[in-house]
Amino acid sequence: MTNSIRAEVVTIGDEILFGQITDTNTQWISTELTNIGIRTVRKSSVGDQTEAILQILHEAHQRADVIIITGGLGPTKDDITKKTLCTYFSVELVRNQTALALVTQFFEKRGREMTDLNRGQADLPANAVYMQNDWGTAPGMWFDYEGRVYVSLPGVPFEMKHLMANRILPKLRASFETPVIKHKMILTAGIGESFLAERIETWEDALPPHIRLAYLPSFGGVRLRLTATGQDEAVLDRELAEQVENVLPLIEKNVYGYDDDTLESVIGYLLLRQNLTLATAESCTGGFVASRITSVPGSSAYFWGSIIAYSNDVKVNQLGVKPETLEQFGAVSEETIRQMAEGVRKTLGTDVGIATSGIAGPDGGTPDKPVGTIWIACAIPDRTVTRLLKLGQYRDQNIQLTTTYLLNLLRETISENVNG
Amino acid sequence: MTNSIRAEVVTIGDEILFGQITDTNTQWISTELTNIGIRTVRKSSVGDQTEAILQILHEAHQRADVIIITGGLGPTKDDITKKTLCTYFSVELVRNQTALALVTQFFEKRGREMTDLNRGQADLPANAVYMQNDWGTAPGMWFDYEGRVYVSLPGVPFEMKHLMANRILPKLRASFETPVIKHKMILTAGIGESFLAERIETWEDALPPHIRLAYLPSFGGVRLRLTATGQDEAVLDRELAEQVENVLPLIEKNVYGYDDDTLESVIGYLLLRQNLTLATAESCTGGFVASRITSVPGSSAYFWGSIIAYSNDVKVNQLGVKPETLEQFGAVSEETIRQMAEGVRKTLGTDVGIATSGIAGPDGGTPDKPVGTIWIACAIPDRTVTRLLKLGQYRDQNIQLTTTYLLNLLRETISENVNG
Repeated sequence: MTNSIRAEVVTIGDEILFGQITDTNTQWISTELTNIGIRTVRKSSVGDQTEAILQILHEAHQRADVIIITGGLGPTKDDITKKTLCTYFSVELVRNQTALALVTQFFEKRGREMTDLNRGQADLPANAVYMQNDWGTAPGMWFDYEGRVYVSLPGVPFEMKHLMANRILPKLRASFETPVIKHKMILTAGIGESFLAERIETWEDALPPHIRLAYLPSFGGVRLRLTATGQDEAVLDRELAEQVENVLPLIEKNVYGYDDDTLESVIGYLLLRQNLTLATAESCTGGFVASRITSVPGSSAYFWGSIIAYSNDVKVNQLGVKPETLEQFGAVSEETIRQMAEGVRKTLGTDVGIATSGIAGPDGGTPDKPVGTIWIACAIPDRTVTRLLKLGQYRDQNIQLTTTYLLNLLRETISENVNG
Repeated sequence: MTNSIRAEVVTIGDEILFGQITDTNTQWISTELTNIGIRTVRKSSVGDQTEAILQILHEAHQRADVIIITGGLGPTKDDITKKTLCTYFSVELVRNQTALALVTQFFEKRGREMTDLNRGQADLPANAVYMQNDWGTAPGMWFDYEGRVYVSLPGVPFEMKHLMANRILPKLRASFETPVIKHKMILTAGIGESFLAERIETWEDALPPHIRLAYLPSFGGVRLRLTATGQDEAVLDRELAEQVENVLPLIEKNVYGYDDDTLESVIGYLLLRQNLTLATAESCTGGFVASRITSVPGSSAYFWGSIIAYSNDVKVNQLGVKPETLEQFGAVSEETIRQMAEGVRKTLGTDVGIATSGIAGPDGGTPDKPVGTIWIACAIPDRTVTRLLKLGQYRDQNIQLTTTYLLNLLRETISENVNG
């Protein structure tokens, strides 16, 4: 990729320089640029000072073909990116009517007063190509200047990502001759990175040089990313499909999907296909399981609801857990988790019920049930599957891992259900 | 802060440029530097190429008094930081006996063979002050060069952090007369950045030059950061406290906390202080409200549980919403949200009940109830407060915003409850 298009990513904002917010934008941007064959040669963060911004723009001009700038586009006094771009390009601020219409609409829709500060967000440097931001009031801007492309985007990650994905990346692909790069993502759950690596080692070693493999581990799952570089899209697609076919037999039970699939979207698909309804009973995950399930658009077709039973009263009254069970075995036990999963099926009248109960931490551990001791269960009409997790000491991590393991247990259970 | 010591933080490594790993080092370093009054004026990432590294070193020399470099100190061929520093300082690599002793010891301890590559890690540029790394085999190095301080550290976060905390920061404090810098964060919710800015404009304009204000917006909230620079910590603390006192009356209803507070931790504190218990009834947020509440350690002391009522059956059977209400007004209506909030209080037997019901999108909108139409409610013993939100068309954003607005409504309601 040495003779590929060079990019420089510039972040503007004192809060990043002073370390007060985590900059997740630059990593995301350079990953996306890499994916379309544009190589990031420098990342820089500067503060909200005109001189500093002008300096980095002049430097970047020497180094890069594409300069992506994020931040400093808010409506307030400390946001000076637009003024500074005007100085750099020696142009004036001009009110953009399309932008103004959108800002106005944005406020009308929310029934809120619009201030001059808000109207000011429709003022753009005269040479800017306005890149419509449908997700906020700050504009996206594209500049062609002395053989370079400058892009200025809001720093709010949500708005920046939508603008990049829907407006900037397509325009960059159209503007530059970049090599064809194709990705195929194989999504696995329930197996650790090193075990996965051992199991597919022979296959990995036999990969051709123009197809690279990356392990992308995340909470409770590992994504395998295949990256193929070449000239012909169709050829690359075929080669990637072949490689997937070759590796699949080795890891079949752990593969839950591909590319943009998620555990929760695959579960939705499986439930819909079998016309099954789902309910969850959560203790230690406190609603995180349900919120992942309902993050899928249309989930209301199969997800009926959840009972989050943080107190034992709720476990007894809403889920029908027997007081003597809690008495004898405690809330974190196989007996209780079984009754929770089966109970929520009954209470909410669904086909499938899943449940969590455990000690998320940091407190509440005992010698025989230390922090990280967590039971999960999946109840379907003909049987209930339970599993004991022994996790670590960090609350957030335990909640996220438990949720992923439970969703995977649900996927396994209803898949077998289909196949059997 | 213009006359404070200026620092530049430089990260070396292709994996960071291409977005393959998250760089957590630079944020940590600049936070630590800020805390000892050294101001980061630039952050840069460059790849593992000699030319790129030499260029950033020359640039940094112009801009900064202190240049902190991380990465590229591993034993393998692609780690070229030390060689490049030799070129930059025009010195030779010299084997450092203290470093060699430590590397040897490191391997003996672990009963592992030491290779020439490992021994090579004890070779330092001739002008380096060796900063002992007790946590790995890569050296820490300090250079005094043409009136600047250069520090080179391994990129492995825990080795870098130990070296910074135990060796570099103390030496920096001893080497420079640094001003005192203090931060105060005011956390607001339920008011947009531009409205906030207008409301506190007079106060903001009257701030003394050594106290700077920044707006840090996030989903549903804006954090106001005050940064004071001076000589006397006690004086700055007093001045910051005064400024907070001055601005508070203008935004009192929107301020939920300071510094490291979160909306959910503040709510937990308010509930505990009044010995109140909480339950949630969620439709469109699908458990996200409960999962934010239960992200707080110890939340089981006041949070009893939740009923996530995605289907109308659950709304009727578990929350006691009247079928005729759903019939007449629909699930997304003030009548229904009121019955949901009051219903969950009854069902779970808590003092406070909060609820959400709306159209999160992307589908399900109607002309009179478009996507983004969301009702929230908070029921306490003596009254129920409802509020209508008109949000955008993006599911994730709607869920997150609704959750923040509801938590803030809860905070307002139980705060009034206290004060009244």
